[in-house]
This record gives sequence, structure tokens and C-alpha cells, in this order.
Amino acid sequence: MHHSSRHSLRVLTSAVVFMLAAAASPAQTPQPLPPESTDPVKLDLMRGFPPPPDKVVKLSTILKFPNGRWAFHHLRELGPTVQVWRGDDAPSLRREMPKHMDALRLEDDKGAPISLADWQRATYTDGLLVLHKGAVVYQKTYSGMAAHEPHSLWSMSKSFTGLLATMLIKEGVIDPGALVTKYLPELRDSAWADATVQQTLDMTTGVAYSENFRDPNSGIFQYLHAAGLLPAPPTYAGPRTIPELLVTIKKQGEHGTGFKYKTVDTEVVGWLLQRVTGKSYAALLSERLWTRIGAQDDAYVWADTHGTQLTSIGFNATLRDLGRVGETLRLSGRSGGRQVIPENVIAEIRKGGDIEKFKANGQAMRSGYSYHNQWWIPHDRDGTFEMKGLNGQHMHINPAAELVIIKLSSHPAGDTSLTHNLDRRAFAAIATTLRAQ
Amino acid sequence: MHHSSRHSLRVLTSAVVFMLAAAASPAQTPQPLPPESTDPVKLDLMRGFPPPPDKVVKLSTILKFPNGRWAFHHLRELGPTVQVWRGDDAPSLRREMPKHMDALRLEDDKGAPISLADWQRATYTDGLLVLHKGAVVYQKTYSGMAAHEPHSLWSMSKSFTGLLATMLIKEGVIDPGALVTKYLPELRDSAWADATVQQTLDMTTGVAYSENFRDPNSGIFQYLHAAGLLPAPPTYAGPRTIPELLVTIKKQGEHGTGFKYKTVDTEVVGWLLQRVTGKSYAALLSERLWTRIGAQDDAYVWADTHGTQLTSIGFNATLRDLGRVGETLRLSGRSGGRQVIPENVIAEIRKGGDIEKFKANGQAMRSGYSYHNQWWIPHDRDGTFEMKGLNGQHMHINPAAELVIIKLSSHPAGDTSLTHNLDRRAFAAIATTLRAQ
Repeated sequence: MHHSSRHSLRVLTSAVVFMLAAAASPAQTPQPLPPESTDPVKLDLMRGFPPPPDKVVKLSTILKFPNGRWAFHHLRELGPTVQVWRGDDAPSLRREMPKHMDALRLEDDKGAPISLADWQRATYTDGLLVLHKGAVVYQKTYSGMAAHEPHSLWSMSKSFTGLLATMLIKEGVIDPGALVTKYLPELRDSAWADATVQQTLDMTTGVAYSENFRDPNSGIFQYLHAAGLLPAPPTYAGPRTIPELLVTIKKQGEHGTGFKYKTVDTEVVGWLLQRVTGKSYAALLSERLWTRIGAQDDAYVWADTHGTQLTSIGFNATLRDLGRVGETLRLSGRSGGRQVIPENVIAEIRKGGDIEKFKANGQAMRSGYSYHNQWWIPHDRDGTFEMKGLNGQHMHINPAAELVIIKLSSHPAGDTSLTHNLDRRAFAAIATTLRAQ
Repeated sequence: MHHSSRHSLRVLTSAVVFMLAAAASPAQTPQPLPPESTDPVKLDLMRGFPPPPDKVVKLSTILKFPNGRWAFHHLRELGPTVQVWRGDDAPSLRREMPKHMDALRLEDDKGAPISLADWQRATYTDGLLVLHKGAVVYQKTYSGMAAHEPHSLWSMSKSFTGLLATMLIKEGVIDPGALVTKYLPELRDSAWADATVQQTLDMTTGVAYSENFRDPNSGIFQYLHAAGLLPAPPTYAGPRTIPELLVTIKKQGEHGTGFKYKTVDTEVVGWLLQRVTGKSYAALLSERLWTRIGAQDDAYVWADTHGTQLTSIGFNATLRDLGRVGETLRLSGRSGGRQVIPENVIAEIRKGGDIEKFKANGQAMRSGYSYHNQWWIPHDRDGTFEMKGLNGQHMHINPAAELVIIKLSSHPAGDTSLTHNLDRRAFAAIATTLRAQ
């Protein structure tokens, strides 16, 4: 473990320095490497046969900015992935009703007026899709990302895992009040020995594990080694798979008292889903979502060296299919005139979690939110609900405004809460603009 | 290189022993591990969350039988791959006209009558698709392979590379009589320094490189290390990418005198294609084939650690889409009423190569054949032409019988020439049966 930490420190020095720099200043102030000069097409990342050595992106460097600007929509080209099959049906038709967003009124963090384009630029956007009343009103991609290329969703994956778990709970297959060990006896000596499924889903477990990309000693780096997403040094002797990692993690504090964001809780849920159904995460995503929403493209899931699928950060999908998911969720589970996700599943997610418990561990950047069944719930007037992921991945659903926004990014800072206030203002401004039309 | 060879010896001992055993006896006699007992579903390979350690298939063990029975239709789950996009059009419709093949008259290598099922069983079939006059008359999958799962094509990839090269030659983009170094100056000190494109396409180059899976000192193992398909030991200091490997290979003998089968010739052609077009192999396959034949599924290509796509053995595609390719080729390039591949491209391939040069290096198992533009040409009465790949991959096109046969397999022996006579009799028996109906 010490070896691993020291290695992470070396590998990630640049990334960490950059993240700290980004954290110290508001996100929309000039970055050391601004979006224009880090466009992966202009940089010629991975271009040429072969690409010159300094243009090669390797798995060990994807978190070193600006490599993510190429890697986040080419992840499968760097390691093992599992197909999430779209099914044999024709893709659902999308109405296109492009709308001008010039009237949009948006302010940066200092109160200066900025345009929709400015916001996208400042937050290193790879793709932005806006659906209003089911029609595509705005769609733009950057960074050389083609419409059929899946983008890494990072922790948006968690909300997919939570969605699947909520379905299985409503079907009575999983008891949210039961101990995790009812389904996963392997965890009997771990932090989750006396945690319930619901506590794990809501991330109110007490676990000796920290999720801080700015701290090279954080548990997240051992997680990344186990996941095969950050190659471990030859001397590394720690866990090489997700299950091996989970069984070693110990309890710290009490379960059920306060929210603390941690990827390993989701991996426990994802493991549990696969155990109770006997189906892999990719198979569940295909059977229960991708084949039901009229998906246009296959998606995929990253796998560790033993084939364990990463249910917390491993899912990759195209912008256009994420729009189909968002629209299905906005319509309380209906797609193509069919109820493809039960209404009570979405109602359960939208009711949210405990706002007091959410505050317990200090989430100043997302004031008023709760986290429930792996979803971010703002408890706002419009009843919005959200998926979020590292480096600026977003699904924002606003039922009152009949609005779905998907935003995929390759922001230099991992922590999406750094641009949270700006992003929320942008989502609200889009809603206001569309309501006025 | 010595390190590499010794490592290969250790890793592949079982595989080599098995291949030798298979080589020593006719393929349809009982194998040490027969098809039934090596069904990956029955064996529970990679089943469970997590799979038990003895059921885990890792990249380092895919060539160790029976792991290929799972791995050959799950290759993307073990390493880097690049999407070959199917396009946005609806898949071409397939007529289904199932026919009974009970009347089929087929003999094993000892002259005993066997059924179509016996042949499939004896040759460890994962999927068999027969198209007659454009309709699916027979379709069967095994080994738990789903219709939407791409299967490794191994050296069938070479024929796809040859098809793309022939298109570019007919377009005047590549001059077959030019030296390879006209396009790839990097090869000026290699075996290909004074070889022409056509010699490389026909594998009549004189290259110090051997392709013998039964010899652990064969160049194929260094190729597999460079390709990232056989993990190299930590002490390995050889090439880590395909271009790095190719520039080190030296000339042996004369160019243009005799056929000798070698994967590295194809990699030179594949590199050249990408250099002259500025597009990757996967992009070319998508643009020129997958988006034009009404493909139903994305396909994919394996990549080395620097993103070099393997143009000789890296292509993976579904049984049903390979049927669409075969049907397009049978119809001299027409698909869905459109000429999607020029007729002269297919005529060029079908005219074949020099039968005398083919015999020069002893190809007793494929008597009467030639090899031209990376295709196997039997020069038979029906004008058949074929793609072939390691472990029993086949595309057999019989224009006279209006027949296309795709056979994907996970045979314990790599060398497909071991079952060649039996396979050819089976193809002929299918043609005879369908002609009689």
C-alpha cells in the first residue's frame, strides 16, 4: 500500500498540481492550459501512424491533463471493456427543433454576463445536448468527439447502478433494509458487515476510505489500481480486483449517521446487483435500459483484470443515448409509449435522501442537496434530479421545465463541485430561456 | 528476444503440447479435450461475481485451450480495442429460409459418413452461418456466443486489409508496383526496403521471420508481445508496438520468388493503408465496409499499447455481419441494390496469384491454391474464394453455387490447415445439398 501511494504520487504529480491550481481559483478564470490550446484535435493527440511519442496517451497518463480531452471519448482503446448491447430494434426517433440560445442570460462566478458558448468553453465541454419537451433543441460536440463515440461517464455510472438497484428493490428482489452481507457474505469481515443496503445506496456508511483526488494517499488511488484504471507499479502487492479490494476495507465511525461520498459503496451495490440477478452489470444495463429506450449505439463498461465490471465509474455511453435515458426518466419511465421503467422507481429516486445527513460531512458546494440511491437531489422548486461525474459529466433533469440536459466534459479538475454553482446557473438559464419561447 | 522466447515457452507449454497432439492426428479423431467437455458455458469460464480463480481467463492464457472457447468471443474484455462503427442506417434485412441439411453427404478423413452437426462438433464450432441466394438457410451458434457478440477473426483480418488495399489500388491511391518505402520510408533499413507493395500483398517477400505457433522461437511470439496480445515478461526489452517491430525485421532470401505466410507482411500493408489515407484501419473498415453493407452491429479492432491497430489478426465481428460482407462479395460488390465495392476490386482478388510460387514453400494441405492480395484462392471450378484465420475461422464464398458460408470456431489447434480437407469437403457438401433443393 505504501508502494502504491508513492507510485501514485509520482504518476499523478502533474494532475494533482493542476487540480490544486484549479481548486484555488474559480473555474471560469483563465486556466493555465485553456480549452483552445488543449483541444485534442489541435494537439494531434494520438494522431498519425504511429503517433509521435509525445502525442501518445497511455492508460497511466489519462488523468494527467490534457490527455483526458482525448481519452474520455476513447477509453476502450486503452483497456478491457464489456459491450452494453443496444438491442436489435431501430433507434427511437428524435425530433430536432433547434432553438437559438442567444437570449440566454447567464453570469459567471463574478457576476459578469457570459454566453452559453462561454460557459461550455470555460468548463471544457466535449458535448452538450438539450432536450425540451422531448425534442433536441441544442446539440454541440467538441474535442473531435463523433456522435457514435461513447464518453466516459465516471461517477454518473453510480446513478445507473442506483437506478438498477431501485428497480430490483421495487420488484422485491432486494430488501433495502437487509444487511449487505445477506447477499454478499464475503463482506462479513469488512466495513459493510453491519451496514444495510439502503445505507450503502445512500452513502451514509462509516468506512475507512477517502475519496480525494487531491490527496495521493487517498483510498481512491488503491481503488484505481485494483480497477486497472491506473496501472500499478511492479512492486505493488495490493488488491488487483474490485472484490479483493472491498473485502479489505474496514469500518470507521457509525453507519447511517452522515453522508460521505465514496466510490466503494457503489461497488458494493454493483456487486450485490450482479450476485442477486446472476447477470453482469453490462447485461443488466442492456436488458433493462439500452434495449428499452431505443438506444442508437452500444455502450460499454470498463472491467478489471479479472473481468469485474466497474459499477461506480466504468460506464461509457454516447451523448445521444444519454439524452434518451434522460427523457425516459423525465417522463417517469415512459419511452416510445411504453412504461419501460416503473413509475415508482423514479418517484423513489426523486424523493431524495436526508438533507441533514447530507450536510454532516460538509458539502458546502452543493448546499441544500441530498444523495439518495446514488442520485443527486437538489430539492428545488422544479424537482430537478441529477447524475454527476468526475471532470464535468452531467445529466440534469428538470421535469417542471420539461427539460433534459446532458453535458460531457474533460475539465482539468476532477472535482465537478468546483464548477457546481456556474453549472447550476447555466441549467437554470437554459430552463428560463426555453420556458420563454 | 531470448527472454521473450523462454517466457513464451513457459506460457504456451500447454498450448504447444496440445497443438502438437492435434497436428499428429487427424482433426476429427477424438481430442484429449473434446468439444462437449470444453463448452465454456458448461465449464463456467468467467462465470460468477467474481469468477473463481480457476475459471478466470486472462490475456496471458487465451491461447491455452480451452480458454479460447470463451475468449474468442469476448476479446474486448481483455484489452484495448477500437470501435468499427456500423453507421446510422437500419441494418439490411435478411431473408430467413431455413433448410434441412439432413440429406447432406459428408465423409470424415477416414471415409466414414458424418453429419453436418458432427463436422461442426469435430471442429469446435462457435458459429455457422450459411447463406444461399442471399437468404439465411442455416444458422447455429455455440459456446454461449450471442448473435450480437463479435468473434475474433484472427487472420481473416488479413483479407479485410487486402480488400481495402485492393480498393485503394483500383482508385489509383496506391501503386502496387511501387516500393513499400515510397509510402513508408521508416522501412528503408528493413526487409521491405526493396520489396514492392504487390509482393508484400501476396506474401512473396523474403523476410527473416517465421510463423509457426508450434515453435516457441518463432517470430510470431515476438509479434504477439509487440501487439500486446501475449503479455511480455517484465524483463522483455523487445518492441512494444507493431511499427517498432516491423522496422527491426531483416531480409532473408529474395523477394517475389515464393509464397511464405507471414503476419508481418500484412502489418506492413495495414500500416501503408493508414499512412496513405490518414485514416485508421477501424475508420477505413467503418467507412468502406461496415457503413455500406447494412451492418447490424459495431465491430472492433485490437490495438497495441500505443494505439496501433492490428491489421493482420485484430479484427472482430459478428457472424451475421460477416454474412453481409460475404454476400456483398458474392454479388461482386453489390449490397441493397448499390455497388458498394467496385466490381473490379473483387475481380482482382478472385483472379488469384501464382500457383507455382504458392507451392514453392510447401503448402501440401492447400494443394492447388494461391494467395493473392491477402485472400486464399482455390482455383476450383466454382470460382470459390476464401478468408481463413487461426483456430478455424472461415469465410467461404462460392459464386457458382450462390453460396456464402461463415464458420467461426475455437479449435484447440491454431493451424486451420489441419482441418482443411474436412472443411473443404463440408463446404462442397453444403453446396451440393443446396443445389439439389
